[in-house]
Amino acid sequence: MEQFLQNLIDAIPEPDQSAIEAALARQDSLAKPPHSLGKLEDLSVKLAGMTGKLYNPVDRRRVLIFASDNGIVAEGVASCPQSVTLSQTINFTRGLTGVAVLARHFGADLDVMDVGINADFQHPGVRNLKIAHGTRNFAVEPAMTREQALRAIEIGAEAARRAVGDGIQIVGVGEMGIGNTSTSSAVLSTLTGLPAAQTVSRGAGIGDNAFAKKLRVIDEALARWQPDPEDPVDVLTKVGGFDLAAMCGAFLGAASLRLPVVIDGFISAVAALCAFRLAPLSAAYMIPSHASAERGYRVAMEAMGLEPMLLMNMRLGEGSGCPIAFEIVAASQTVLREMATFQEAAIDDGYLEGIRGNKAALGEA
Amino acid sequence: MEQFLQNLIDAIPEPDQSAIEAALARQDSLAKPPHSLGKLEDLSVKLAGMTGKLYNPVDRRRVLIFASDNGIVAEGVASCPQSVTLSQTINFTRGLTGVAVLARHFGADLDVMDVGINADFQHPGVRNLKIAHGTRNFAVEPAMTREQALRAIEIGAEAARRAVGDGIQIVGVGEMGIGNTSTSSAVLSTLTGLPAAQTVSRGAGIGDNAFAKKLRVIDEALARWQPDPEDPVDVLTKVGGFDLAAMCGAFLGAASLRLPVVIDGFISAVAALCAFRLAPLSAAYMIPSHASAERGYRVAMEAMGLEPMLLMNMRLGEGSGCPIAFEIVAASQTVLREMATFQEAAIDDGYLEGIRGNKAALGEA
Repeated sequence: MEQFLQNLIDAIPEPDQSAIEAALARQDSLAKPPHSLGKLEDLSVKLAGMTGKLYNPVDRRRVLIFASDNGIVAEGVASCPQSVTLSQTINFTRGLTGVAVLARHFGADLDVMDVGINADFQHPGVRNLKIAHGTRNFAVEPAMTREQALRAIEIGAEAARRAVGDGIQIVGVGEMGIGNTSTSSAVLSTLTGLPAAQTVSRGAGIGDNAFAKKLRVIDEALARWQPDPEDPVDVLTKVGGFDLAAMCGAFLGAASLRLPVVIDGFISAVAALCAFRLAPLSAAYMIPSHASAERGYRVAMEAMGLEPMLLMNMRLGEGSGCPIAFEIVAASQTVLREMATFQEAAIDDGYLEGIRGNKAALGEA
Repeated sequence: MEQFLQNLIDAIPEPDQSAIEAALARQDSLAKPPHSLGKLEDLSVKLAGMTGKLYNPVDRRRVLIFASDNGIVAEGVASCPQSVTLSQTINFTRGLTGVAVLARHFGADLDVMDVGINADFQHPGVRNLKIAHGTRNFAVEPAMTREQALRAIEIGAEAARRAVGDGIQIVGVGEMGIGNTSTSSAVLSTLTGLPAAQTVSRGAGIGDNAFAKKLRVIDEALARWQPDPEDPVDVLTKVGGFDLAAMCGAFLGAASLRLPVVIDGFISAVAALCAFRLAPLSAAYMIPSHASAERGYRVAMEAMGLEPMLLMNMRLGEGSGCPIAFEIVAASQTVLREMATFQEAAIDDGYLEGIRGNKAALGEA
């Protein structure tokens, strides 16, 4: 199983430099001041590096949603009962939740996976990949075994492989799991060395007492279990969740398959950071979406050197920020394909010389 | 003519409180933690206030593009020759520029208006509303007469009226005009009392000398002409541009007609600030799009209490940030319409009680 993970990491290719250069050259030839379309340009260049192709249609889109329960909720750190994990998971399949509505708006499908919901059920829209009936309570014992963490990573990587098999051109990584802001903060604190006070928000709305307890529970667990920050699998094992581990696997799997993968909010960003720590090259396949209102989001993104492109004050999770990002990526492709080159835009020489002069000036600055 | 402006300002209605309350109640009934969809919720509430209706489809979209020349380019403050204003204006109609490509991607049309290009031409795709062959050089004389500034405002307001007549449901405000980062910084410095050093970027890429000159030209002109910060028309007259004044009129006109109007980048934001200073109520009809890379952008937006929703490092202008914003507004409408209410989402009582308990907790926080 450890070998599986090593193979997954080793399979992640370097970005394709010749495709990157082709995209940069194409952007450079378009009739605009250099880099004046900012991230719309960067996205087209990054995608070229991912796929090795200049043009990358992203019409077939999918949000991967990993649902599981977290034993830590026994400590009273969450504001919702655990049953919400199951009910919202079923609501994804009914098209009723935030991510479901946004995915429909932006033409994405959902792959809803039970990787550890604490309930016995079968639903035609939910893939049964249950590892256990929720994790253990990391306040009193490690959340899971190392084998379980590795199995979750494998499940996530398989979801990316399934997407490629289905012809999907871009995926986003979302989740559902009551208590997973606590596990995410615990993992993030370990990976960054920051105390819980710098990685915990009030989550989806908890009172003063529950908030103080959340901080204490996390700091105490980290002191007790001493997860190894150099070994993200150990961190996920001791204080993570099946959702987090599977999401980490989805980021690694997507990268190994040259599949562009969008980071949603806080929990998704922490899973991405786990993948990044296991395989720094994986960040070359990640696309940030929105700046989550959760305080830990920025910590995780800065640790990867990534910056969000949407400022929406969202904190729903589920992968709800991904569909908007898919459309922005699509727009970056339209710009790359359809904007005029200097040659095509030429109306008089002044025009050409003007923008070209400008380009030279920028080069000096 | 002054009477026309006063009538325009007086015509701007208060946002519709009952529609706002209906949208807030609808958002409150949807199965998610309160305000967890952030600006997707805020947009739906703001639009309701604008139109007086709960649901506001924004399928019919338009970018208003005001093109004109600026006499200040004689001072060497711009990096492109003036002829670029004309050639890019024609390229809008050919579907080749950044905004044209993005508008097509997002299903918006363009209304391209010549409000003062320094060239004689006729083009079937460009509406001839020319006020003069460019403004005067504000380093040596006021940019225009007060009558011209008022006429430009009227032209902008008429563009908003034409959009409503054409069944357009949302507009964005863009521009083309070599030298208009200089006019925008001059107007912004006057309205905020800040020196040029705090409102000027290097524009679309200029060298050290040109940059220093740009600062000096603006500070000297403001000292010489003493535009009255309490009178935005005076500011536009002395150091503005036909494009800026017309854009200001478009914001006022849209507000007077309850038409949602999107702010693009720096120049658009300065025009919006002029409208806001003339009629603070107009901001209730404005929707920010992207955080321009121009430093003055933030100054203008903060002066209106508005925050962008896209972080794209764009600085192309033209209205190029508006089409993406149109689609985000559309997504906000889909969420409002299609997300399940707590009642519709109910699977078991735990789910309902969980999220409701959470809502109560947030209320306390």
